[in-house]
Amino acid sequence: MQKIAINSGGEMNEIYRSALVVTDENVNRIYGGMLPQNKCVIGAGEANKTLLSVEKIAAAMIKCGVKRSDRITAFGGGMIGDVAGFAASVYMRGIEWSFVPTTLLAMADSCVGGKTAVNVGLVKNAIGSFSLPDVFIETKYLNTLPRREYESGMGEIVKMSLLDPLLYEFMQGKFNAETAIKHCVRLKSAIVEKDMYDHGARKALNLGHTVGHAVEVLSGMPHGTSVLVGLRLELLMLRDYIPHNFFYELQAYINKYLPELRYNFDAEAVAVIAMSDKKNVDGISIMYPVSIGEIREAALDRRTFIRLLREAM
Amino acid sequence: MQKIAINSGGEMNEIYRSALVVTDENVNRIYGGMLPQNKCVIGAGEANKTLLSVEKIAAAMIKCGVKRSDRITAFGGGMIGDVAGFAASVYMRGIEWSFVPTTLLAMADSCVGGKTAVNVGLVKNAIGSFSLPDVFIETKYLNTLPRREYESGMGEIVKMSLLDPLLYEFMQGKFNAETAIKHCVRLKSAIVEKDMYDHGARKALNLGHTVGHAVEVLSGMPHGTSVLVGLRLELLMLRDYIPHNFFYELQAYINKYLPELRYNFDAEAVAVIAMSDKKNVDGISIMYPVSIGEIREAALDRRTFIRLLREAM
Repeated sequence: MQKIAINSGGEMNEIYRSALVVTDENVNRIYGGMLPQNKCVIGAGEANKTLLSVEKIAAAMIKCGVKRSDRITAFGGGMIGDVAGFAASVYMRGIEWSFVPTTLLAMADSCVGGKTAVNVGLVKNAIGSFSLPDVFIETKYLNTLPRREYESGMGEIVKMSLLDPLLYEFMQGKFNAETAIKHCVRLKSAIVEKDMYDHGARKALNLGHTVGHAVEVLSGMPHGTSVLVGLRLELLMLRDYIPHNFFYELQAYINKYLPELRYNFDAEAVAVIAMSDKKNVDGISIMYPVSIGEIREAALDRRTFIRLLREAM
Repeated sequence: MQKIAINSGGEMNEIYRSALVVTDENVNRIYGGMLPQNKCVIGAGEANKTLLSVEKIAAAMIKCGVKRSDRITAFGGGMIGDVAGFAASVYMRGIEWSFVPTTLLAMADSCVGGKTAVNVGLVKNAIGSFSLPDVFIETKYLNTLPRREYESGMGEIVKMSLLDPLLYEFMQGKFNAETAIKHCVRLKSAIVEKDMYDHGARKALNLGHTVGHAVEVLSGMPHGTSVLVGLRLELLMLRDYIPHNFFYELQAYINKYLPELRYNFDAEAVAVIAMSDKKNVDGISIMYPVSIGEIREAALDRRTFIRLLREAM
């Protein structure tokens, strides 16, 4: 069971007992003054989620004399968790690490479940590992989060709410980040515990991601926002499989968080990217809800996928 | 239990059912004509045991459409096993792989035990994973092995023989590669099975490696040859702990395989490299034999290490 503390106030202790803290330029600009000397700052953004950054972190670990029995801390968004977590999981064939997420997306989603990864060329998360960090979520870091990053986090929370009646109901009322995060962490932890190595139950988390991943690559929009765009398109593509009223209810719900129409993607390019996803072994898999908490899978061949996506846009 | 076939003749079947075969320039120059189209050829030698080669292999896997359920084959020496095995162990968070070793060192030693790794800067094996391949050893590939590589393999076999009376006795008679490899595979498999994640029993395999690793980095000699030089120096350093007659017997035995004196290393540089090893958490650890099969550990502080090494050279 992964150790996840929410608003415990213990994150700086953790950072100071680590042999190295890894963060990105943006986070370092705001919080760098609070961090210890033994830190490694890498470039911000998806473009730096590479093996080159892993090498930079490993070189910093070597320079700081990080030993097998030491631990490091990732301090930043999901990208920092991915790249520092991957580096920890392979440094000396694996050392322990902690994660202090600073974005809503990382707090509500990516800090749970132990998937780390880097991109290879255009292929997202082509290389990675399963490695569970201890997590210290402190919602105060949301105060400095840029608006577009906040919206991105809301995207994954909205997606997650389709998996769980309690969270869905909560999302219809007054929003509170700490409560939403607690719901998401509980929900994702339960799913991950059933399926650590991504053989089945985790698939439900993939709602919105088949199209969303491609949208992210093609548009450069933040991950959670892309997932929400992907979710809206996937629901439109599979509307014939979804109960009528539920479909319209979901469209209205999603539109609250995604008012603009951003539907300008090349359907063939989306299909190529979706086919390259590691989950799509036979055809292209799309997850869709038939009610809150009840998620099914559709497997589309390439041609059908392209036709349905064109109709949806 | 790792699947290891010796002279089964099945290696080409395995290569042709793989989604990708990874090899190096040298092996490709000799055997490239026998290999399938879907191959990835990387530069030969320790200098290419890097994350850059891992990225190149991952890009080739993406290009060949390698899926989570596919497997790849490493065809070459220990360096190819290390880098291709590491790439397989992290591609899509881990796929299966096979290893067809082409060097004596890889057949007798590195194909067993599932340690994969790449170097970061001067630090050998700074990044890696535990990942067990299926192994297909075919001794016919030794026919094209350069002499200095063959000698390197003999170095690890000589080291291994200090762990096992049966192998030690065999080594006093007429040498036969297949029999020696069988002994080494049996012996190392038994040790690895007791200690997959390198917490104790595997330490015995580290005979000769504390000084040997540094010798390899400083001299550029092949791994096994460096280990043998390291073993000779380590025995000299710790001769007071080793029964008199046994010490002289071992020196004579080692000299048969390493006639030249190659003792020209900066003791301080050796100490710095030894300190950076992941096994040396407190002080510098040296393994030494008190009889065949009975291995002990000495932990030296830096100053003592340098003094004893200077005296040994």
